[in-house]
Amino acid sequence: MIAYLTPLGPDELRDAGIPAPWTFGMADRVRFGDLDALNHVNNVEYLRWYETLRFNYLTHYSIYELAGDDPKIVVKSVGVDYKAEVKRNTSYINVTRTVSMRNTSWKMEYATFVDGKITTTGDCVAVLLNDDNSKRSLSDALRETLISRDGAVQL
Amino acid sequence: MIAYLTPLGPDELRDAGIPAPWTFGMADRVRFGDLDALNHVNNVEYLRWYETLRFNYLTHYSIYELAGDDPKIVVKSVGVDYKAEVKRNTSYINVTRTVSMRNTSWKMEYATFVDGKITTTGDCVAVLLNDDNSKRSLSDALRETLISRDGAVQL
Amino acid sequence: MIAYLTPLGPDELRDAGIPAPWTFGMADRVRFGDLDALNHVNNVEYLRWYETLRFNYLTHYSIYELAGDDPKIVVKSVGVDYKAEVKRNTSYINVTRTVSMRNTSWKMEYATFVDGKITTTGDCVAVLLNDDNSKRSLSDALRETLISRDGAVQL
Amino acid sequence: MIAYLTPLGPDELRDAGIPAPWTFGMADRVRFGDLDALNHVNNVEYLRWYETLRFNYLTHYSIYELAGDDPKIVVKSVGVDYKAEVKRNTSYINVTRTVSMRNTSWKMEYATFVDGKITTTGDCVAVLLNDDNSKRSLSDALRETLISRDGAVQL
Repeated sequence: MIAYLTPLGPDELRDAGIPAPWTFGMADRVRFGDLDALNHVNNVEYLRWYETLRFNYLTHYSIYELAGDDPKIVVKSVGVDYKAEVKRNTSYINVTRTVSMRNTSWKMEYATFVDGKITTTGDCVAVLLNDDNSKRSLSDALRETLISRDGAVQL
Repeated sequence: MIAYLTPLGPDELRDAGIPAPWTFGMADRVRFGDLDALNHVNNVEYLRWYETLRFNYLTHYSIYELAGDDPKIVVKSVGVDYKAEVKRNTSYINVTRTVSMRNTSWKMEYATFVDGKITTTGDCVAVLLNDDNSKRSLSDALRETLISRDGAVQL
Repeated sequence: MIAYLTPLGPDELRDAGIPAPWTFGMADRVRFGDLDALNHVNNVEYLRWYETLRFNYLTHYSIYELAGDDPKIVVKSVGVDYKAEVKRNTSYINVTRTVSMRNTSWKMEYATFVDGKITTTGDCVAVLLNDDNSKRSLSDALRETLISRDGAVQL
Repeated sequence: MIAYLTPLGPDELRDAGIPAPWTFGMADRVRFGDLDALNHVNNVEYLRWYETLRFNYLTHYSIYELAGDDPKIVVKSVGVDYKAEVKRNTSYINVTRTVSMRNTSWKMEYATFVDGKITTTGDCVAVLLNDDNSKRSLSDALRETLISRDGAVQL
């Protein structure tokens, strides 16, 4: 059985039946508080899940260290697409990867897997800022990490 | 001062400085629990706000009654675009309208106004289902409501 | 009809049928996101409601100003007692008052009224701290406010 | 390292340095969304944690099966006492046990352990109801489980 709340790299994800190109994931389980009056995981809750995943990803990839002094990372946009509902107590694996980079931002994709099938996908554009909220270019080291680990492309 | 938590139609919105084509809104105020560790409204929270707005809209437009017997309305996708942060205790007006319709679904747009300026926009595709989760065509009465009240276009 | 999200003093509360000794309140309405899988307001949500109420109370009573330089106010304990469930879209009035004070803390009581009847009650002990988390005695001005406005007793 | 989101019985809890009489627990880790504007776990969030714990406990102890046909379990009251703040990304173990029983209800105690120290405690009274919301006496089998597993006392 897969370990909960533990960073999963490409090897662990493949072992869990999650295909390339997903590179980072985390297993979790639906809580009662994730459910809404329709008795399934509330659609807003997935954004909360992906937020948790994103912070774990940024930490695990050392993005804060690679981004220069006192980096500020903000979310510019998010999107979620719902394919199937998820029910009480279900175990799931949330996965992500960075697909592309621009000068000061990068785009991540998300998916939720239940029993090897995707129930939900999402994406997010993250922007790197200086302390005064001016935009900051991604460092070479940050770009190299996203390219080598995730196969991210420069746009 | 504008009334909180009260359905606002086109006239009230124009009086509040919110331009056409927005047709439905609701004023509210940031709560402490809306804030995250960065001391601004958490980006997931806007989805919660738009959910509240959507239920008020569906009720106010009698969508459940116009949709036929025992309609089920589910969210197919959501998106949010963040333009400016919103701070503690700020009063805001969330607005929405239906912009387009397909056979069994419709697309809504959202925006958050603070002091007459948009801080956040979003959208959502809602799908009409039967009890057994099969798709149901929008009734003529439902289409007419969305066309006449919101200027929605048939795609 | 009572104004939502607007501080209600003793007179407005009495007009709304809420008896003495409640001194401060705020009207609000159940949102879809307040509901859980049992289709009533989730029991944790009341704590969120009372948190919002407490911040409004502290602001309205100028507690932060009366508490001295850079005050820190933390919650030492909370309790909630559930008497009746609250359903979707219900309008409610949350009320509070400070009932007693000790050297560095004070105790607040809460209640939720729906149609003039109490559905839920709660309480909270708030503690005043200095910047270094050492306890700070309540100022005389703070005590006088809580005594004269709420009838709080010194323990 | 202790397994996350996995039911922990007395043996696993003792191995983790958590003393008797705690009998059931679950390890978890602070998420970004658990934090509030003060950059620590929000005090309401503990109630959410204990709700998750309670559902896991009820399932693991087969309380729903032992409670008779179509049991309804509702929360009558909750309380939380905050001793120390919990910070971002911290691993914690939430524990619980039933301490006492009355005719139709039982009382649970909660605690949060971080690095072997208690940061937060709580309690809850749960009531067993029939479908029509009338109270139902606890079955002998249910009482025996709570006595033999948790050392609960009959009041």
